[in-house]
Amino acid sequence: MKLWTRFKTAHGRIGFGLLQGDQIAEHRGNLYDQPVPTGATIARDAVDLLCPCEPTKIVALWNNYHALGAKLGKAAPSHPLFLIKPATTLAGPDAVIRRPPSYAGKIVFEGELGVVIGKPASHVSEETARDYILGYTLVNDVTAAEIIEQDGNFAQWTRAKGFDTFGCLGPVIAQDFDWREAELVTRLDGAERQRYPLADMIFNPWQLVARLSQDMTLLPGDVIAVGTSIGVGSMKEGALVEVSIDGLGTLANRMGG
Amino acid sequence: MKLWTRFKTAHGRIGFGLLQGDQIAEHRGNLYDQPVPTGATIARDAVDLLCPCEPTKIVALWNNYHALGAKLGKAAPSHPLFLIKPATTLAGPDAVIRRPPSYAGKIVFEGELGVVIGKPASHVSEETARDYILGYTLVNDVTAAEIIEQDGNFAQWTRAKGFDTFGCLGPVIAQDFDWREAELVTRLDGAERQRYPLADMIFNPWQLVARLSQDMTLLPGDVIAVGTSIGVGSMKEGALVEVSIDGLGTLANRMGG
Repeated sequence: MKLWTRFKTAHGRIGFGLLQGDQIAEHRGNLYDQPVPTGATIARDAVDLLCPCEPTKIVALWNNYHALGAKLGKAAPSHPLFLIKPATTLAGPDAVIRRPPSYAGKIVFEGELGVVIGKPASHVSEETARDYILGYTLVNDVTAAEIIEQDGNFAQWTRAKGFDTFGCLGPVIAQDFDWREAELVTRLDGAERQRYPLADMIFNPWQLVARLSQDMTLLPGDVIAVGTSIGVGSMKEGALVEVSIDGLGTLANRMGG
Repeated sequence: MKLWTRFKTAHGRIGFGLLQGDQIAEHRGNLYDQPVPTGATIARDAVDLLCPCEPTKIVALWNNYHALGAKLGKAAPSHPLFLIKPATTLAGPDAVIRRPPSYAGKIVFEGELGVVIGKPASHVSEETARDYILGYTLVNDVTAAEIIEQDGNFAQWTRAKGFDTFGCLGPVIAQDFDWREAELVTRLDGAERQRYPLADMIFNPWQLVARLSQDMTLLPGDVIAVGTSIGVGSMKEGALVEVSIDGLGTLANRMGG
């Protein structure tokens, strides 16, 4: 399995490459178009990892796991239900999640699989959809939960999920990852809070790319956050949230304050 | 009033400048940071006008006019209600609006004022908000109306308004424009369908920049589509929609097919 990372060196230089054990084999060119090894390797510990891609948008799913839908009494949708988290939500590995100064309510973590788009996808079939996926990553789809239903006429999904630092993403993009056998685990201050099989998805990654590409053009680096399942919970100031899938590693982010 | 345009020449070169009568005074550098005249002028008729800015996101308001809210029986919200239209929705002046192949239902026009952000805005006060506005433009916030309520559990605002070509924008960015005295007019195949005063806004442009900048960082070129008022209607294949405000010109887009 190839694991792509982006990093910043101590001198502030930004690069990308393949994570191989505790080393990064640096590459140059375009991550989405046959990048080339530079020949240089850099110690993983010598750099800060960044978001592994630079999405123009994060398409975030709601009600996309059978188990959570059943628990909430919501029927499976006939088409993916989504909102857009803007790129300004992005927070990389180990970045701090910041409480909006204007909001004193509950902030929740949602551990999710992220699908990273590899080339422009418009009106793609389910059969060819996997060719448009660069790889997979981890997402913490942070949500200011009490905002969603604050207005009786309009569910504020975008606002609740759109604050700066509410789109935690990384640490790698894994290629040749088979989601069908994998489980996602979320830990809050070390205690397991979510553990669910990705196979329980209502629309799987290939179906999501195909369906969403009927709704809008997906661009290289764009991320589909495929939705979460049971076990979402509140993050207090100082809490550490770790989202893990075997093979994709662990995305760790602490709540500031 | 300064009117900024972006254009493409017959040779495919993209440039920008100030529209002065039937001429464009070309500029170079950064539209958002003291662009400089090149000294060249180009005839307006010799080029195609493009979207005058390149937003990373369009923040689109719902229920932001007193008259439309009263007609629909919706109370004025206590905070702006919004969704995000991705940059892939953008369609410039005279660009064709395309029906999504997957959707046979009603497509509606919504003539709106657009606020163009001039510099990064995060946690801005209402008093200083106008310093973060580069200028104003026109928007047709095209909507696949029958999608919004298709799922009983989740209003699909983003999907209904997120299709490619559903974010018509332009033709200019007007600086030193006073929205308080202006009316917006929308014509469908030449017949007036919307005419409303911008002063009827619930949250005005300065309040919107201040409030939305509490929710997310607004970036240079980002556009706030401030919402529409009474008179929204259906566009049939081949229909021409023209959105006008005195001083900002007319944004004309035809529905394909």
